Amino acid sequence: MLANPPDGPEAPQSSAPRSRGGWGAADGPLAIRKPYALFLGDVHDARMAKTASGIHFWRPDDCIAQVRLPGCRADLGLPDVSAVEAAGLGAQTLVIGLAPPGGGVPDTWIPELVAALAAGLDIASGMHARVADRAAVGAAMRARGTRVLDVRRAPADLPVATGRKRTGKRLLTVGTDCGVGKMFAALALERELLRRGCRADFRATGQTGILIAGDGICIDAVVADFAAGAAEVLSPDNSPDHWDVIEGQGSLLHPSYAGVTLSLLHGSQPDHLVVCHDASREYMVGVDGYRTPTLEECIEANLRAGRLVNRGINVVGLCVNTSSMPEPEARRYLDAAARRLGLPACDPVRTGVAAIVDSLDV
Amino acid sequence: MLANPPDGPEAPQSSAPRSRGGWGAADGPLAIRKPYALFLGDVHDARMAKTASGIHFWRPDDCIAQVRLPGCRADLGLPDVSAVEAAGLGAQTLVIGLAPPGGGVPDTWIPELVAALAAGLDIASGMHARVADRAAVGAAMRARGTRVLDVRRAPADLPVATGRKRTGKRLLTVGTDCGVGKMFAALALERELLRRGCRADFRATGQTGILIAGDGICIDAVVADFAAGAAEVLSPDNSPDHWDVIEGQGSLLHPSYAGVTLSLLHGSQPDHLVVCHDASREYMVGVDGYRTPTLEECIEANLRAGRLVNRGINVVGLCVNTSSMPEPEARRYLDAAARRLGLPACDPVRTGVAAIVDSLDV
Repeated sequence: MLANPPDGPEAPQSSAPRSRGGWGAADGPLAIRKPYALFLGDVHDARMAKTASGIHFWRPDDCIAQVRLPGCRADLGLPDVSAVEAAGLGAQTLVIGLAPPGGGVPDTWIPELVAALAAGLDIASGMHARVADRAAVGAAMRARGTRVLDVRRAPADLPVATGRKRTGKRLLTVGTDCGVGKMFAALALERELLRRGCRADFRATGQTGILIAGDGICIDAVVADFAAGAAEVLSPDNSPDHWDVIEGQGSLLHPSYAGVTLSLLHGSQPDHLVVCHDASREYMVGVDGYRTPTLEECIEANLRAGRLVNRGINVVGLCVNTSSMPEPEARRYLDAAARRLGLPACDPVRTGVAAIVDSLDV
Repeated sequence: MLANPPDGPEAPQSSAPRSRGGWGAADGPLAIRKPYALFLGDVHDARMAKTASGIHFWRPDDCIAQVRLPGCRADLGLPDVSAVEAAGLGAQTLVIGLAPPGGGVPDTWIPELVAALAAGLDIASGMHARVADRAAVGAAMRARGTRVLDVRRAPADLPVATGRKRTGKRLLTVGTDCGVGKMFAALALERELLRRGCRADFRATGQTGILIAGDGICIDAVVADFAAGAAEVLSPDNSPDHWDVIEGQGSLLHPSYAGVTLSLLHGSQPDHLVVCHDASREYMVGVDGYRTPTLEECIEANLRAGRLVNRGINVVGLCVNTSSMPEPEARRYLDAAARRLGLPACDPVRTGVAAIVDSLDV
């Protein structure tokens, strides 16, 4: 969904301090320093810069420049600078939000990455390949004392979950499948809460979300025994009027990932769920022959499991990706779902999520 | 329960080849070579040798000697030998099945461990501390080319679960809480199946089970994204008359570990469940104020979740730890549970599990 984001209001920035330092990643503290320069490399197709465009869409004030190499076809409309110039402008981190073909780090990138580290920038990467494993990159990092942060790696020393009730309000996005807009919905809800003057924080649980937020825990990379504990750490005690809007992962009804989803549900102990769905998704992704569950099945499974840690859990809205439908059909789909389930039904891209926030006690 | 095991028939050995080699641990192949010499160290209390006594109880034919240091108060009744003598008797692995106070590797053990590795024995350890991190141990291992296998570490390169239906029969033990006898029940069921001439394999998912079986995957040490995939690898396609009896972990209704349990349930895609319970357990372990679920709640949660990957899943029996009760009360408890739920109800230690196997289509 991030490839073609809607025009939205400029995002108000989050109310809580971003540097929590409550846990340490293997490479050092997890908090990614802002502002960012976004590295677009030499990707030949703008769609490969989907993560970078998502960061820019959701955190425009955190992005002060883009760093492009010759041949780059992606363009976020930010000032074009070198990594060294970005450091001069005050950037703290060069963010690699790219998925080049093959998943490796192209040789053509190395000189600019080395220059960035030497100029005092950290590098944050959501790539599969470990950027710091490239010898010149590792050497530059050690020479200057800068960091290469791999947001796919989970922090060490996470605790086992306690199930203890925490203070503050929590909303978790859940879904009928993977890739149905749980991150987008959570960010849209955070933005709408902040617009209304509420105190709210998006809590990131996947690599793109972490790059957007500047911190978080890649929940599916945590050792299984500590996955629910990671979700507890991610969303600590807070003041009674504060909202944590937690990015969901996977689906309780997906045979590959349901354990991750359940750990996140239990560790988050949400008061409210928003259920995400893709209206065109007949079968779940990555597995053969598993039909996408209905919204009703998804709601029932999540409420049943979530009650273990929060008796008062409820569903407050539906976020449906209707991008496969023309406008009138999408409206009919949303209206029918809303009537059937007695819940506000939005498409975050098409309609925004104000109707869901209207139903919250904010 | 292993601290005081009942006298049982000598265990028939498993029917399937133990060396599968389908995945590799970080330290090399996971398969632990048998037969074992059991290292009892210098523990002052026989209860610290609980894992070793479990290995001896369940796999007596795999244990040819015990290696004790001066001051040791544990005794399994095996021939007392040095590590070097154990190698001469044909032992392949020195197994450390101990939990000494503090969890570290005492200095007093090092000379014997070094001698074992130098004599050609592998070492297999279920301790929290990493034995190979002791410099003299690591050096001896590298000098002779022997291995120190840490059964708490998960193999690398596990796949994401596919949800694909596999051939062969699968039975999983599940429970109302952690530590209610799921491993003991699975081993008792394997033993009873083998006694009746069935083809059966205990599939180990925790460190003690892995030392008993000689292989397996410590499921709670797997990165969350791959936990269900690990369970699929653990229990591959098999012939239609073959039973995998899979060791359960945690509980679907435990707020710390339910995600691990769900991954194991989905990856195992069991045809049959045996539900384990401790009759004296009012609150779940490790968390405050969470009541142990009833057998009915546990059954409902497991059947509901298990149907996603196996529509025909059913519960075939109850294994209840009644060690807190005198005999007449235990019998009344089991009879009442059997009547209420319409299922055979056993205490594997007190009654054995024949009544459950009677109900299977073997």
